[in-house]
Amino acid sequence: MSKSLILYDIPSTLPSNTWSPNIWKARYVLNYKGLPYHTEWVEYPHIEGLYKKLGAQAGGTKADGLTPYYTLPLLYDPSTGAFVSDSAAIARYLDKTYPETPTVIPVGTGALHYAFNEALESHFDALWQFALIQTNFILNPVSEEYFRRTREASTFGGRKLEDASPKGEDRKREWARLKGDFGKIDAWYGKGDRYVMGDAVSYADFTVGAWLLWVRIIYGVDSEEWKDILMWHEGRWGALVKGFEKYEAVL
Amino acid sequence: MSKSLILYDIPSTLPSNTWSPNIWKARYVLNYKGLPYHTEWVEYPHIEGLYKKLGAQAGGTKADGLTPYYTLPLLYDPSTGAFVSDSAAIARYLDKTYPETPTVIPVGTGALHYAFNEALESHFDALWQFALIQTNFILNPVSEEYFRRTREASTFGGRKLEDASPKGEDRKREWARLKGDFGKIDAWYGKGDRYVMGDAVSYADFTVGAWLLWVRIIYGVDSEEWKDILMWHEGRWGALVKGFEKYEAVL
Repeated sequence: MSKSLILYDIPSTLPSNTWSPNIWKARYVLNYKGLPYHTEWVEYPHIEGLYKKLGAQAGGTKADGLTPYYTLPLLYDPSTGAFVSDSAAIARYLDKTYPETPTVIPVGTGALHYAFNEALESHFDALWQFALIQTNFILNPVSEEYFRRTREASTFGGRKLEDASPKGEDRKREWARLKGDFGKIDAWYGKGDRYVMGDAVSYADFTVGAWLLWVRIIYGVDSEEWKDILMWHEGRWGALVKGFEKYEAVL
Repeated sequence: MSKSLILYDIPSTLPSNTWSPNIWKARYVLNYKGLPYHTEWVEYPHIEGLYKKLGAQAGGTKADGLTPYYTLPLLYDPSTGAFVSDSAAIARYLDKTYPETPTVIPVGTGALHYAFNEALESHFDALWQFALIQTNFILNPVSEEYFRRTREASTFGGRKLEDASPKGEDRKREWARLKGDFGKIDAWYGKGDRYVMGDAVSYADFTVGAWLLWVRIIYGVDSEEWKDILMWHEGRWGALVKGFEKYEAVL
């Protein structure tokens, strides 16, 4: 465990550079486990080239089920030579490869964790039109062009991001819908439980935390949006992100 | 634990009477735990009246968030006087009230189980047009009229069940989509794992099993549909239902 792992991440124009929720899931896990790593920065259009240069396999395919889909996070472990894509796969890999560090996916909960992630994201329909669009405006120009083009085509059915962004009364209604969506997630938790699995932190909490951190980062900690979320559901979301501040180091 | 619990279920024209997947989730759990119970039969239009006669609270509300929604399963426990609706709530109740029986929702996995159920049902879009429509034809007339009216209005957007049922090439395509949906669920499982939590049965397996049992019951064990499903995903689904045959008693 002497060699530093490498986490590939997408930079931004923000002082902290980081923003991506999927990469934060992996970084939270690395920080929680206390593993040595450092971040290397890759702009969106250069991700595919990075994989090819490194000789890493894509972690999944595009909607056609055939075309390789090159995404971050990508983790490189020089101790084993392994490249691992996809934050859940990274969590599994680190649990298995470094069993002396705290486990994030307890034995027997792997399938439940996969399903948790799907169920969680199925409630984010309202989230995209806020956070995904806002993300565009914090990217560096080379990534912004790529992000806009691909997201306008996929998530927003060909509409321009500016047109897909809800305004006025629409915005109020959609923001209320977002709160309702988080209410459905809140209802999953056991009474009085802070974490998905009760008293113990697990990977599921880092996924929830990473989506929330995304909102805090791109809107800003002093924004009306973040301040509103802090009050939702008896402060559950704010408390979660606050509790994870100790895992926010960007190494 | 000397007193027999009562499970309220919806009958059919089939010799076994039972068919409802949501009620099978609860019955699987009762049988797995070996708790004494007996079934009482209630036709759809009489469910609300049953709740009112018993003085039981509805387990949830309709889409408006206000109107009580009276559903089965409903469990009555004469030892505690408790009425419990909703199969997941019944599983939790039985775990808590009868801790000497095998646990189905291990400590710490309650929220993961709720999310699992949501993720599972989010993949059943193609299933409804097959199994829900087929169900209509095995109900007794008094329930059939109710079921048809409510499902045509809700699930099928006002279309007649006969029109919503896919035919010819459409049917082939939708059946293939159903297989694809089960493939996504299959992908959640750990390599070589028979159950959602690995080696140990949990409530999640009874939910998956109950949906499959529904298909076997309404199409018949010798139907082409069921024989096809038995071959999907290296026999995972057939093996699951087969393994649960010992929990199929209708007491």
